[in-house]
Amino acid sequence: MSNGEDIITSWFARQRNLPACDFPIGIGDDMAEVRLADGVSVLITTDMLLDGVHFDLKTATLEQVGYKAMAASLSDCAAMATIPVAAVVSVGLPAGFGQAQLKELHSGIIAASDKFNCPLIGGDITKWTDASKFVINVAMLSRPAGNPPVRRNGAKVGDAICVTGSLGGALLGKHLSFTPRVKEALKITSLVKLNSMMDLSDGLSSDLNRICTQSKVGAILDTNSIPISPDVKKGSGAVFAALNDGEDFELLFTLAEDNCVKLLKQWNDSVPITRIGTITDAGKMQIKMSAEGETSPKGGPDGKITELKPAGYDHLK
Amino acid sequence: MSNGEDIITSWFARQRNLPACDFPIGIGDDMAEVRLADGVSVLITTDMLLDGVHFDLKTATLEQVGYKAMAASLSDCAAMATIPVAAVVSVGLPAGFGQAQLKELHSGIIAASDKFNCPLIGGDITKWTDASKFVINVAMLSRPAGNPPVRRNGAKVGDAICVTGSLGGALLGKHLSFTPRVKEALKITSLVKLNSMMDLSDGLSSDLNRICTQSKVGAILDTNSIPISPDVKKGSGAVFAALNDGEDFELLFTLAEDNCVKLLKQWNDSVPITRIGTITDAGKMQIKMSAEGETSPKGGPDGKITELKPAGYDHLK
Repeated sequence: MSNGEDIITSWFARQRNLPACDFPIGIGDDMAEVRLADGVSVLITTDMLLDGVHFDLKTATLEQVGYKAMAASLSDCAAMATIPVAAVVSVGLPAGFGQAQLKELHSGIIAASDKFNCPLIGGDITKWTDASKFVINVAMLSRPAGNPPVRRNGAKVGDAICVTGSLGGALLGKHLSFTPRVKEALKITSLVKLNSMMDLSDGLSSDLNRICTQSKVGAILDTNSIPISPDVKKGSGAVFAALNDGEDFELLFTLAEDNCVKLLKQWNDSVPITRIGTITDAGKMQIKMSAEGETSPKGGPDGKITELKPAGYDHLK
Repeated sequence: MSNGEDIITSWFARQRNLPACDFPIGIGDDMAEVRLADGVSVLITTDMLLDGVHFDLKTATLEQVGYKAMAASLSDCAAMATIPVAAVVSVGLPAGFGQAQLKELHSGIIAASDKFNCPLIGGDITKWTDASKFVINVAMLSRPAGNPPVRRNGAKVGDAICVTGSLGGALLGKHLSFTPRVKEALKITSLVKLNSMMDLSDGLSSDLNRICTQSKVGAILDTNSIPISPDVKKGSGAVFAALNDGEDFELLFTLAEDNCVKLLKQWNDSVPITRIGTITDAGKMQIKMSAEGETSPKGGPDGKITELKPAGYDHLK
C-alpha cells in the first residue's frame, strides 16, 4: 500500500474499535454506516474540493464547481449502492465573493440535487481573509436500498472485475460534468449480488488496490479489455491514462463469475459494463499486456504479465 | 436582518420547499433533521473552520484546531438539545503537511470525540498546492433525546431569555478550548420545556436577532444582568464585548416565565444559567442601560431603553 492517504486512514481506523452494532461500516469505505434503530440505518460521506486541486476557478464556472462537489458525494452513494437522502454544504469563500457568486454556486448544487432527488438541507458559509482561496465541502446522507450497502472488503478469489463507462482523460473536462452512477449501481444490485464495489476517484490502479488490500486478495487485469475513454488520446500511454488519470467517477465492482455472465447478458443500459479482469490469490495486482502493441505502464512484450502498482492520485503527495 | 449570511441562507431556504414529512427541520437552524422511519430521525450539521479566520496556526496548535472543529459541531448538537452520534471530518492541508501533523490534529479531534462519546467514523484528506492554506470541516450527526429538537423559531412573547455561562472575550483563548454545552442542554430540557434555543457563535446581539427574526418577535435585554466573562476587561466596552465578540459557544434559550422560575430554582450545575431579558412584541431588539454607568453599544443614560442592533460576526462581511 503506497498511498499516503491510505496509510493515515488505516492508522486512524485502528485508533478506535467502533461498536459494530451501532456502526456497521466505519473509516475506510466510501461511506460510513450508522444504525439508528432496528432495521434503520443511515450512511454518511464527506468530500472536500479545493480550488487549484479538484477544480480551477480560472477556467471552471462556479456552477460547475457546485455540481461537481455534489456529484462527487453522489458517486459515493452509488459506490455503496445506496439511495441519496440529503446533503449539507460548507463553503470557504474568497474575500470579495458576494451573493451573486453564491447563487451561481447554488445553481450547480441544485442541478445535481434535483437530478438525484437529494435536497440541500443545510450548510455553513465562511470567508477567507484574502481573495486567493476557495473550498467547498459536501457531507451527504444515504440509505440502504433493500440490500446491504456494498463494501470494498468483500472481493473473493475468482470474482470477475467490472467497471461502468470508460476510463481516463476526465481531467480534460468530464470531471466537472460527470454523471454519478447512482441509478446504475441500484440497477446492478437489483439484478445480481456484488461482492465489492467502490467508485473510481483516484484512478483504477489506486482504487483497485484499495479493494485488493481491504479484501486481502490480488487481481489481474487484461489490458485489451480496459474501456478507454474517447477523451484519452490514442496511442501509447492511453492505457496508462485509463489506469491512473483519476476522477472517472465510474463504478468498479467484483462479483462471482456466474453472476457476471448473468449481469452482462441482462444489461441493456446506455452506460456500458465491461469485465476487465479477475480477482486472484496472487497477493498483488497484475496486468496482462495488450495484443495490439499497447503496453503496460512499465512496457513489456505482448501477452506478458507484469505487476501493476497503484499510480493514481495520492491526496497526501 | 443585516447579516449577509442570514440573507443568503434565507434565500437558499426559499428555493425549495422540502417535504416536511421527511425533513422536519431544514435550512436555517443549528441542525437539519431527517426522518428515516416512523419515530426514527437523525440530525446533521456542518461546520467549516478556516486558518486565519476561526483559528491561527501561527499561535494555535493542531490539537487545539482539531478539538475546536469538533467542539463547534458538538455545540450545534447542544443547541438543538440532541445527543451527538458520530462525526466525519474533511481537511484541506497545506503542502508540506505529513502524517505527524495529521496525528496531532487527530488527537484533538479524538479528545472531543471521547469526551462526548461521538466517534469519528469517516473523513476526507486533501492537500493544497501551496503551504499557506489550511481548512477543516466537521459534519456531525445527532439524535433526538426523547423530546423534539429545540428550534430557533419557537420563542413566544413573554418568554424569559436565558444564557449559560458568561459572554465575551472568547477570542483571547476560550474559543480554542471551550466545553460545548451538550450535557447542560440535555439536563435543561429534561427539567423544563424550552420554546427556542441556539448556541452563541457569532455574538449575542446577532444570534438573538436570529431567534427574534425566525420567531417573529422582539426582545429586551437588561444590561445589568448579562453575565460578562472574566476574559473581558472591566470598564466601558465590557457589555459591548459580551454582546458582540462571538465564539462564546454558550446556550441562548427562551422559555415561559414560570418554567424559567422553576429551572433557576432547580439548577445546581457548575455552569450557571442567567436570565438576561424577555421576549417582546416590539418587533425589534432593545436593551436597557446599566445602573452602574456601563452603557449600551451606542451609549445612553442610565436605565434608558435603546434599540439593539446585531453587531456580531458576519460570515460574509
